Amino acid sequence: MKLTKYLFVGVAFALLPTFALAQDAAPTFDEIGPYLMTTLLFLVSGFLVFWMAAGFAMLEAGLVRSKNVTTQLTKNIALYSLSAIMYWLVGFNLMYPGAFDDVAGTYPDAWLIGGWLGPFFNPAVLEPVGLAAAAADLGYASVASDFFFQLMFCATTASIVSGTLAERIKLWPFLIFVVVLTGFIYPIGASWQWGTGWLAQMGFYDFAGSTVVHAAGGFAALAGAIVLGARIGKYKDGRVVPMPGSNLALATLGTFILWLGWFGFNGGSQLAAGTVGDITDVGRIFANTNMAAAAGAVAALIFTQVMYRKVDLTMVLNGALAGLVSITASPLEPTLFGALWIGGVGGIIVVFMVPLLDRLKIDDVVGAIPAHLIAGFWGTIVVPVYAGADSNFGTQFVGFVAIGGFTFVVSLVVWIVLKGVLGIRVSEEAEINGLDMSELGMEAYPEFAKG
Amino acid sequence: MKLTKYLFVGVAFALLPTFALAQDAAPTFDEIGPYLMTTLLFLVSGFLVFWMAAGFAMLEAGLVRSKNVTTQLTKNIALYSLSAIMYWLVGFNLMYPGAFDDVAGTYPDAWLIGGWLGPFFNPAVLEPVGLAAAAADLGYASVASDFFFQLMFCATTASIVSGTLAERIKLWPFLIFVVVLTGFIYPIGASWQWGTGWLAQMGFYDFAGSTVVHAAGGFAALAGAIVLGARIGKYKDGRVVPMPGSNLALATLGTFILWLGWFGFNGGSQLAAGTVGDITDVGRIFANTNMAAAAGAVAALIFTQVMYRKVDLTMVLNGALAGLVSITASPLEPTLFGALWIGGVGGIIVVFMVPLLDRLKIDDVVGAIPAHLIAGFWGTIVVPVYAGADSNFGTQFVGFVAIGGFTFVVSLVVWIVLKGVLGIRVSEEAEINGLDMSELGMEAYPEFAKG
Amino acid sequence: MKLTKYLFVGVAFALLPTFALAQDAAPTFDEIGPYLMTTLLFLVSGFLVFWMAAGFAMLEAGLVRSKNVTTQLTKNIALYSLSAIMYWLVGFNLMYPGAFDDVAGTYPDAWLIGGWLGPFFNPAVLEPVGLAAAAADLGYASVASDFFFQLMFCATTASIVSGTLAERIKLWPFLIFVVVLTGFIYPIGASWQWGTGWLAQMGFYDFAGSTVVHAAGGFAALAGAIVLGARIGKYKDGRVVPMPGSNLALATLGTFILWLGWFGFNGGSQLAAGTVGDITDVGRIFANTNMAAAAGAVAALIFTQVMYRKVDLTMVLNGALAGLVSITASPLEPTLFGALWIGGVGGIIVVFMVPLLDRLKIDDVVGAIPAHLIAGFWGTIVVPVYAGADSNFGTQFVGFVAIGGFTFVVSLVVWIVLKGVLGIRVSEEAEINGLDMSELGMEAYPEFAKG
Repeated sequence: MKLTKYLFVGVAFALLPTFALAQDAAPTFDEIGPYLMTTLLFLVSGFLVFWMAAGFAMLEAGLVRSKNVTTQLTKNIALYSLSAIMYWLVGFNLMYPGAFDDVAGTYPDAWLIGGWLGPFFNPAVLEPVGLAAAAADLGYASVASDFFFQLMFCATTASIVSGTLAERIKLWPFLIFVVVLTGFIYPIGASWQWGTGWLAQMGFYDFAGSTVVHAAGGFAALAGAIVLGARIGKYKDGRVVPMPGSNLALATLGTFILWLGWFGFNGGSQLAAGTVGDITDVGRIFANTNMAAAAGAVAALIFTQVMYRKVDLTMVLNGALAGLVSITASPLEPTLFGALWIGGVGGIIVVFMVPLLDRLKIDDVVGAIPAHLIAGFWGTIVVPVYAGADSNFGTQFVGFVAIGGFTFVVSLVVWIVLKGVLGIRVSEEAEINGLDMSELGMEAYPEFAKG
Repeated sequence: MKLTKYLFVGVAFALLPTFALAQDAAPTFDEIGPYLMTTLLFLVSGFLVFWMAAGFAMLEAGLVRSKNVTTQLTKNIALYSLSAIMYWLVGFNLMYPGAFDDVAGTYPDAWLIGGWLGPFFNPAVLEPVGLAAAAADLGYASVASDFFFQLMFCATTASIVSGTLAERIKLWPFLIFVVVLTGFIYPIGASWQWGTGWLAQMGFYDFAGSTVVHAAGGFAALAGAIVLGARIGKYKDGRVVPMPGSNLALATLGTFILWLGWFGFNGGSQLAAGTVGDITDVGRIFANTNMAAAAGAVAALIFTQVMYRKVDLTMVLNGALAGLVSITASPLEPTLFGALWIGGVGGIIVVFMVPLLDRLKIDDVVGAIPAHLIAGFWGTIVVPVYAGADSNFGTQFVGFVAIGGFTFVVSLVVWIVLKGVLGIRVSEEAEINGLDMSELGMEAYPEFAKG
Repeated sequence: MKLTKYLFVGVAFALLPTFALAQDAAPTFDEIGPYLMTTLLFLVSGFLVFWMAAGFAMLEAGLVRSKNVTTQLTKNIALYSLSAIMYWLVGFNLMYPGAFDDVAGTYPDAWLIGGWLGPFFNPAVLEPVGLAAAAADLGYASVASDFFFQLMFCATTASIVSGTLAERIKLWPFLIFVVVLTGFIYPIGASWQWGTGWLAQMGFYDFAGSTVVHAAGGFAALAGAIVLGARIGKYKDGRVVPMPGSNLALATLGTFILWLGWFGFNGGSQLAAGTVGDITDVGRIFANTNMAAAAGAVAALIFTQVMYRKVDLTMVLNGALAGLVSITASPLEPTLFGALWIGGVGGIIVVFMVPLLDRLKIDDVVGAIPAHLIAGFWGTIVVPVYAGADSNFGTQFVGFVAIGGFTFVVSLVVWIVLKGVLGIRVSEEAEINGLDMSELGMEAYPEFAKG
């Protein structure tokens, strides 16, 4: 998000004298209109980003082999659900320390939340039902809508991880990692930037999360891929054995869903929609986001044709996603031409990085590391070209390394501990027969004969 | 919906003196802003709930065997379309008697609707094109947007029925039942609550329809399942024979679609978005709805692991849906912690009730009765815990029994009549070969060999 | 869209004296509210119409045989991406000549766009970041949001073409046609109506594009189908050989997606949401659009039962789409009963026209010509029944012939040139083996045995 929450709260209080609400009169639209519009922005953007959870589920279900589809679907709905709980229980208040304490008021579950859980956790609390205008933060938006929106970013980070580690990781250890990632790792890293932390104060610029969300998810995935190792038979006698996805229609559907959801991801990160400048900016962001995705897809289309003499659909899909990740650090400032070349380079990155990762024997089943981590780096580092006054290359680099390094190291430790304590990899036999039978005892397509 | 339409109309008239529109001046945003925002809420929520029709179609297509997929898809698009027509032709004005007569004005089709059809039907009528602010119900919203939104609830009720009765019911008798359900049964039951009927006056509380929509749909499905009987071979020698769904990726997609649509289902039921209190409440509803779904999914995840030693994806999907149904009677009042445990219990209900129904030899193909009827009961009965001042357990029980009993008995009669007159079940041979060949002569996946 | 852009700009300037913004005071909601609401309408409608790109992709992927699915998916994501680029590079300013020159201001890429590309192209330019209210067109909406919305209509036109020509056209020649169609052919035709061109001045009425978008897309497809010829084996010994789609669940999903997106397509074409009259009209449009789709589906359901003794799901899907196309020329003016019969006739058109086209040996794989071109004609010509004062049958006919004829002739020339220069059809062997192997070397469902 372009500015941290704290600054907005500051603005709110600064504006209060101007828009002071007379206790006796109904508030006017000049007073409450921006609050209504921004809250609506969060709700609409929030449901769009929620939809990205379905996008990741379809993309990944389409790119794994049919024997692992049920497991991949289960991981996706479970990781989203666990994120929703963990972000409430710990993440939100860890990410925005103290920012929302004033809304707690007379919390009906205080006996439990404030008492028994209180010493350990600090769960998110919404405003009371039927909030009075005089009690609202009229310079910003409803806390509930903001919580709903922010939660989706946390869940997205976890979605990125599941694709890379598909087809060989055990279900429960993966879900335990998700609990740690969404409750602690992501919120801490994100708080450095969006919780008015040291990166924000240093001038790091990451509008909607090329680094904070996408590269962080990519680094957590990379750590897992290293600890977990490649799938059996993936790298054999120095060759890379292709393991084609079982359903490219699903993978394409997933990509379209993600593209749609990204309008909320980037557009909602404007964090305001109640002035001409703000809503116009949201329009710019929609147009730029779309252009970057289109350019990423076209770049991958052309480059796979040129390099391999045949277009590769999975590369085109990842090209669109890389274009989206690339524009996410600064979707507002570039011109449409800027969005075109920034997104296009993102698409090219994917075409070149997927084989490179394979040469390093890092087995990333769906290509999430190129599309989210590498394109996330590109999107972060290119910010100053169009957002010059607000950012510089050095700070951008520091921010990427800080959040990326933190996420990578902590994730690595968690993966190693999980490996030691529970084991994170299914048995060789289970992997060959497919995780659906070994982990769940349930096939995704039980009636379709395998060719 | 939390309040009945009638009350809102009352409020509108009460406010009119305050916001009296001078004929000579353009209306101000203080006068029209709430109307704009609430109308927008209905439109956005309405298209989200429309999307649930696709969700049910995908969920059910994924959970039936491949030989019945085309039929299931056909039933879903047909039932939605018939609902749209019947709710216009009869349902809307049956549900809200007299509420919108004043908008009829000089109706261009009066020769037909008011004349020929008039004695029999009382179709819904929209405001004229380019409605003047002075002629609008500024305390509420556009009738057209409200009709659009309410229609979706009617269609949802019918969607619930189609899943339970899959794989053995004839197409046309099913569609005739849908005509009766959406034109008459649902609107009459719903009018008792949302049309300022006797349940509303008694204090029954059902914000977005745990009973009015979901339990009603579940009871109509239950009546059908009893009259129709179980699928051939489902219950054999005292054992329950599993008949796995053909495409769990579709079923998961359907669940994500329903989850997304539910934000509109519950959020739009606030019926207002033009004040700080109302839009903030919509935010609370979004956050709570999401939490309940997540908790339902996680509860089913954990309970299937504990009870069966393996996670069951279809239970997790139904757990999420049951969580959603559970919070629907009161998505506004609970805290996030409340939504967590209310939704979680919903998820547990599904895990325990699915085998119980099988023991009763009630063959519910997709698990709609546990997820909608039983979780609907749970959601209705738990309302007073957080919405204490507005409700009590006795009234909640009466409301559930009244709407559920009415829907069940009338549905039972309709099913029995249909069975006697037309027959509702396909022949044994047709059932074994699949309804797609017998009913439609068209396969959903004609090229995929069966394993 | 109901009125041309130019008229709106005129209105804006006319209103400026009334709402003159004092430089020293913050603008009031009475001044900026309509701009905020209309911009929001464009953004929400725009993402809904974007979603239609996914709908076409799923519909077409479901209706082709499995050996051509990957190619069809690739064409869909590529055509959308190319449209996004071409509409920016050429189309937008070709369609609305001069309308947005004033927003260019100090364009950061002026060295490139205004210089090197300038003599040849005139790319779309967005407003600057943080637009001041005093600099905005407060009588309309953000240019960025408008560009985003309009772009989607251009892409829709191209989507229509890809379905008709499936299963035999080469990838790259198809994409070159898309470049010409979205950069030049569509914008020129659309400018006659929506760019205040001669058709608009003559009184042609096409609210959201039954002719401008759907019939135009249908004519471009028809031209291609004639030049390209039928699939091998489609018409054999005077018989029409059925070639069933590989995945009717996907096709149904695609139809539901298109139906959902159409609320934005028609609703957003109101081009205004900031007054009681405008937002109420958007509500009318939503309700009518839904009714027409439902009626088209039900009409096809009944007519296929009556004519063929069996319901045909693909006809029902196309019936819903034809209902949508039929109401698109005038979704605002009809009553709900009007939407019912207009949409219903659309559904019947499909049932009768699909076999008729086959008799003419025009091989339209997904039925896009009946659903978009013929239903587009019907929707255009029926407009005066409800929008009498604003239109007449003669002008409607002229408008349809003008845009249809122009699109058909120019498309025909482009297809013939492409055929002569590059060849547009894959080899016989490639067609028999499937385009996925010959064009892409990649199967959509590599593991599912063919039956």
